Amino acid sequence: MRELRINGDRLWASIMEMAEIGGTSDGGCNRQALTELDKQGRNLFVTWCKDAGCTVTVDAMGNIFARRHGPGKNTSAVITGSHLDTQPTGGKFDGVYGVLAGLEVIRTLNDANVETTHPIEVVCWTNEEGARFSPALIGSGVWSGVFELEYGHSRLDKQGISIKQSLEDIGYLGETAAASSKNIKAAFELHIEQGPILEDKGKQIGIVSGVQGMNWYDVTLVGVPCHAGPSPMDVRVDPVMGAAKIINRLYKLVDQYKPWSRVTFGDIKVEPGVRNTVPKKLILSVDLRHPDQNTLNRMDLDLRAIVEEICTPLMIDYQIFDEWASQAVSFAESCINAVRQSVSELDYSSEEMFSGAGHDSVYVSRVAPTSMIFIPCEGGISHNASEKATPADIEAGCNVLLHAMLKTAS
Amino acid sequence: MRELRINGDRLWASIMEMAEIGGTSDGGCNRQALTELDKQGRNLFVTWCKDAGCTVTVDAMGNIFARRHGPGKNTSAVITGSHLDTQPTGGKFDGVYGVLAGLEVIRTLNDANVETTHPIEVVCWTNEEGARFSPALIGSGVWSGVFELEYGHSRLDKQGISIKQSLEDIGYLGETAAASSKNIKAAFELHIEQGPILEDKGKQIGIVSGVQGMNWYDVTLVGVPCHAGPSPMDVRVDPVMGAAKIINRLYKLVDQYKPWSRVTFGDIKVEPGVRNTVPKKLILSVDLRHPDQNTLNRMDLDLRAIVEEICTPLMIDYQIFDEWASQAVSFAESCINAVRQSVSELDYSSEEMFSGAGHDSVYVSRVAPTSMIFIPCEGGISHNASEKATPADIEAGCNVLLHAMLKTAS
Repeated sequence: MRELRINGDRLWASIMEMAEIGGTSDGGCNRQALTELDKQGRNLFVTWCKDAGCTVTVDAMGNIFARRHGPGKNTSAVITGSHLDTQPTGGKFDGVYGVLAGLEVIRTLNDANVETTHPIEVVCWTNEEGARFSPALIGSGVWSGVFELEYGHSRLDKQGISIKQSLEDIGYLGETAAASSKNIKAAFELHIEQGPILEDKGKQIGIVSGVQGMNWYDVTLVGVPCHAGPSPMDVRVDPVMGAAKIINRLYKLVDQYKPWSRVTFGDIKVEPGVRNTVPKKLILSVDLRHPDQNTLNRMDLDLRAIVEEICTPLMIDYQIFDEWASQAVSFAESCINAVRQSVSELDYSSEEMFSGAGHDSVYVSRVAPTSMIFIPCEGGISHNASEKATPADIEAGCNVLLHAMLKTAS
Repeated sequence: MRELRINGDRLWASIMEMAEIGGTSDGGCNRQALTELDKQGRNLFVTWCKDAGCTVTVDAMGNIFARRHGPGKNTSAVITGSHLDTQPTGGKFDGVYGVLAGLEVIRTLNDANVETTHPIEVVCWTNEEGARFSPALIGSGVWSGVFELEYGHSRLDKQGISIKQSLEDIGYLGETAAASSKNIKAAFELHIEQGPILEDKGKQIGIVSGVQGMNWYDVTLVGVPCHAGPSPMDVRVDPVMGAAKIINRLYKLVDQYKPWSRVTFGDIKVEPGVRNTVPKKLILSVDLRHPDQNTLNRMDLDLRAIVEEICTPLMIDYQIFDEWASQAVSFAESCINAVRQSVSELDYSSEEMFSGAGHDSVYVSRVAPTSMIFIPCEGGISHNASEKATPADIEAGCNVLLHAMLKTAS
């Protein structure tokens, strides 16, 4: 059993075949959730799963479950999966790799006639990306009870078409299975890193022990607009001055909690945005992250104190709006250990790390012992046609997944 | 002659009557250049000038010249004036005060039967504000030879209507006079300060010795977009980090050249402006001013050095685009002295200062000895319905104008 290996060429070929559905001229993939192209991708996946002997069910959110049964009556499955939908400017690997690697695990077990005590199940989650329907992760979110089914069904795309309607349109509104979590022994998700850490450190496998918590804020600074010429500097109430100081201080703040802390200012809006007028208002979007929730909470308090400390002497009125927050996730030690041991036995180089991006595993981990496995992607780039992973890393990650699943399913 | 004073009540009443044309419900005034309302305002002014015995001519840019002749054949006039057009959200005093104060000087000289060696002329310049037609100051700009007449005529408003067409429509396309500067002995412009300095210092008259030079830049910083979560802080190429450092350094730079230096960041644009992505690009508008051109030139070099010094170690590509520049103006010592002596004789409190805003006098000063006189305005606010000046200051400023013109026209 220790010598069992997946078929890297077959997995690579499956990924490349899937990438043709929605393939773009620049080598990327545009296969957004519940579109005609997503239907084609799902159909191909279901066909492959049935060819591999799996029982395929679809739940009311369109999540697809392909089960390879164990010999006994034990129904507590070891699952793996990710998503087949892409961003409009997506690549070949994000999500797809995790789904097709699960299928490759099953194909490998079939080839070697390996029986597992617990069933092995591959899942394709609906609308992970959130590109067509907001919010992201809605399929795994309903499945794990974070969202109500009614909420999931009623999400609309920009044309006003609901998820329920779209599921009906493409024939993936599940008839028999309810959108609810089941009895799961363990869950794994294999994914490209979407960051540069593994590549920079020259490591092949990321052993992912959790997902960063993240807080989204809109910090609004209100000043007094005045003419750029006649108004002396020392009488101005200038929101840009406040914003620049706040930005600098927040960069210093995250530096105190490195290497896993992050702050990102993705958007700055200035009103009225007139070249020769001190702005009336500046809205700064802040994305603050740390994998340890206590640390993130401390950074949250620091952020509020910094904004107050800077704005008060500058006479700037401010408001901190809590746009959204996602708690830090610590994955199950049992799953992390299964991954760690597999990496060690397979003798791959590895790095213990956190996920900076959200994944279906965030929600899955609410109802099942869960962890993730990362492989490097070139330049840390994803959501882009130039998204790249090497065949060697694709194969290595899937071997880790195979053995982590075998350890927990045996 | 030293005892001669203008009639403050009459001047105030004229300003209030003019303010009714385009008067807004919030007490402001919306009388944009060459509109039907501007026509009404011009007609009222011309009627008043003719009633005061003036010869009125209109040039090809619609600039109105109302001349009170001297006794002899000397045609070298002492002129004063400003503009009757307002911003869409304008007030009662900006520009209007300078025009009607000139008329009040003539009315006062008439009442006292004072003859001057040189003619006295009041000018209303076309489209000073630049609100309807860009650029601002186009009337005085063509008159002084900064712009060609053809350029002035062809400027379009947002509806595509040209200045020439608008002048025809309201009957102010001058037939006889060419849009060219004439033989001018001296020029004065009386204006509200549009800044808070006189009010803050408790001074009644600003003796304006020049106009700040100003440079407009667009500083574009180009980074590498990456995901807010997975990308460690130390590998990012983040244009926001560069911008915050540049902004802070430029505030420190102008602090070295205070009190007359200014820097304003009126607009910041971020692309793609996505909350959880390090931006690809940030465009920062910079408005840099100083009344001494040599100092402004030094600040310009410092700005370029600061941007390079900050961007290079952060790996940020940058471009500094010179959007526009207006050289610092030093007004004529002869005119400044005439104002200074008048203030002293009238015993008003005063402050020697620079204008931070552009005025028609910037262009007039290219072809004639020129200076300006300021009076306080409440809170330094202008281009706003709440623009306010006191009757006492309105009267004091006009008395200074009267005596400065008398000194040069006698």
